[in-house]
Amino acid sequence: MTRHFVIKVPASSANIGPGFDVLGIGLSLFLELDVTIDPKFASETNNDPHNCVITYSEDSEGFEHVPLKADENLITRTALYVLRCNDIREFPIGTKIHIKNPIPLGRGLGSSGAAVVGGAMLGNEIGKLGFSKERILDYCLMIERHPDNITAAMMGGFVGSYLRDLSAADMERKEIPLSEVLPEPAGGHNTGLAPPIPPHDIGRHIKYDWCKQVKCVAIIPDFEVSTASSRGVLPTAYTAKDMIFNLQRLAVLTTALTRSPPDPELIYPAMQDRVHQPYRKTLIPGLTEILSSVTPKTHPGLLGICLSGAGPTILALATENFEEIANEIINRFAKEKITCRWKLLEPAYEGATVEELDN
Amino acid sequence: MTRHFVIKVPASSANIGPGFDVLGIGLSLFLELDVTIDPKFASETNNDPHNCVITYSEDSEGFEHVPLKADENLITRTALYVLRCNDIREFPIGTKIHIKNPIPLGRGLGSSGAAVVGGAMLGNEIGKLGFSKERILDYCLMIERHPDNITAAMMGGFVGSYLRDLSAADMERKEIPLSEVLPEPAGGHNTGLAPPIPPHDIGRHIKYDWCKQVKCVAIIPDFEVSTASSRGVLPTAYTAKDMIFNLQRLAVLTTALTRSPPDPELIYPAMQDRVHQPYRKTLIPGLTEILSSVTPKTHPGLLGICLSGAGPTILALATENFEEIANEIINRFAKEKITCRWKLLEPAYEGATVEELDN
Repeated sequence: MTRHFVIKVPASSANIGPGFDVLGIGLSLFLELDVTIDPKFASETNNDPHNCVITYSEDSEGFEHVPLKADENLITRTALYVLRCNDIREFPIGTKIHIKNPIPLGRGLGSSGAAVVGGAMLGNEIGKLGFSKERILDYCLMIERHPDNITAAMMGGFVGSYLRDLSAADMERKEIPLSEVLPEPAGGHNTGLAPPIPPHDIGRHIKYDWCKQVKCVAIIPDFEVSTASSRGVLPTAYTAKDMIFNLQRLAVLTTALTRSPPDPELIYPAMQDRVHQPYRKTLIPGLTEILSSVTPKTHPGLLGICLSGAGPTILALATENFEEIANEIINRFAKEKITCRWKLLEPAYEGATVEELDN
Repeated sequence: MTRHFVIKVPASSANIGPGFDVLGIGLSLFLELDVTIDPKFASETNNDPHNCVITYSEDSEGFEHVPLKADENLITRTALYVLRCNDIREFPIGTKIHIKNPIPLGRGLGSSGAAVVGGAMLGNEIGKLGFSKERILDYCLMIERHPDNITAAMMGGFVGSYLRDLSAADMERKEIPLSEVLPEPAGGHNTGLAPPIPPHDIGRHIKYDWCKQVKCVAIIPDFEVSTASSRGVLPTAYTAKDMIFNLQRLAVLTTALTRSPPDPELIYPAMQDRVHQPYRKTLIPGLTEILSSVTPKTHPGLLGICLSGAGPTILALATENFEEIANEIINRFAKEKITCRWKLLEPAYEGATVEELDN
């Protein structure tokens, strides 16, 4: 039996100022997996131990260095993890996956979150597992325990999430490095056991009613910040004062962004943060100045400004004057000898989708 | 000219689990100030340096020990502070204030927040200052810098607030102890300067669209916890993990409580807290057990459970079975030899009100 389907997963911006490890917005820039399963491709795929040939479109982000082996690529590794948890060892013979990725890598736009979500959706489709998005999210959260990008990419729109307080047994393994379940030929991890099936409802989330007048301006500097190094600069403890600063703003921000017309007087200060942005300024030249001096007074239409995820992308929320806002930030980065591009994006309300195509 | 008006200010419950110093709900239990200004009362009030006679209804909470002198009572002290900031030295000759207070003192139901809000409203009325509620809130926040109860009492409903990052000059004085501005005859504080007029917009807030099916069950133990001692047990620093625990839950909770029908699966875990409740168990016998063992599974209709403000009152949000839920908690306190009463309350949607009456 042949199949042809396309999985689309949006980019995402996490944190949105005070919502560190909490908030995410799915953004209208989509990782696309064009998947064909056709036994007539068997001769092409039988050189691969997992029966899978991956191609990557030349105009994709990371074209030069993204691995195309099924047990090295994050998307297919995740799919194999989902499949093996459900007693399916490999992709069907004759699986071809063509990847188009317009999401810049290492810039704070959720490229790896999209890969994990895309991979888990792929596993669900390939295995015909029929899981709900909520259940597929559990698999994603076994690989990446920060729910902000993952939930936004899967569910779409503007979302907040928490991880539940699971029983000690369920949570004993906090996060499953894929290296433990792959690429051993048997598919089990190093101890010879089957891959760890996720507990149910690791996280819960809520989707806020985003005010549609609000658009997302992403200013993307031409350098990468690794999630590891951007987490490495963060403290392990916070003063009560800084914590309360963020709690207060977070509580107001989520609802303020649902109200029409959006109020810059309420939103701009509510997007301030003392938990991650101040510590990341060492990794992102010009950050402090950008976050403090581009305001709704200097740029009407601007609602708020923050680091997108771990950066270096800057996310500005605005109702108009998008180009002026972007150019102001681009000019400030230029003073630091950093070049940027920018994109005007909207929330991707649907999140990850699968479209079955005729052959 | 004679005047007669009534000011009503609701009780309030702060924190609601994860929203420490952030969230508050105005509750349908009202501090009432019945105010008459009539020059024919001059002979009664001219023994008071502030021209004001205070009476307190016998069935009021704190009847035995609430001070009735205008420069000692928190309500009238606050009113005098507002008046003196606006160049009015005393109450008009012949001011009588009859206070009815059904809000238990020192139980975490916002009795002092209601007194400060009531006093500031009183100052605004007496001085015919014509301030908006937002501006009166600035005065309240000069006296009590925690916005949760104050904002809920003033604005009503379910609210979240943040304090703005004001300029150093504005914030140099974080909180004004009334002893500094009162009771000196000149009305200035110890340095001889005029009372400090509040900066504008010290805080900002948002009112969430509370789901009307949700009711508030307050279980009120028969002992007081002072705000000072309940703040004294809190740490000055938190781990990133505990902070993120609360940030994640807070982000989901505010919106979850607006959705109909309310979802206990989402709300109950979202009302958990690691910032204040675990530290207050030493002050409130039985607290840990109550918060962990009364659940939507054991008590259908229950949505979530938390400490009300600094306690010892327990707040349960529920859609039905109010009495069963209250009795369960009362029985658990009884094991600690603590007696309780309980009240079924609703949000006070309007907040503080003034009603002008005919004479």
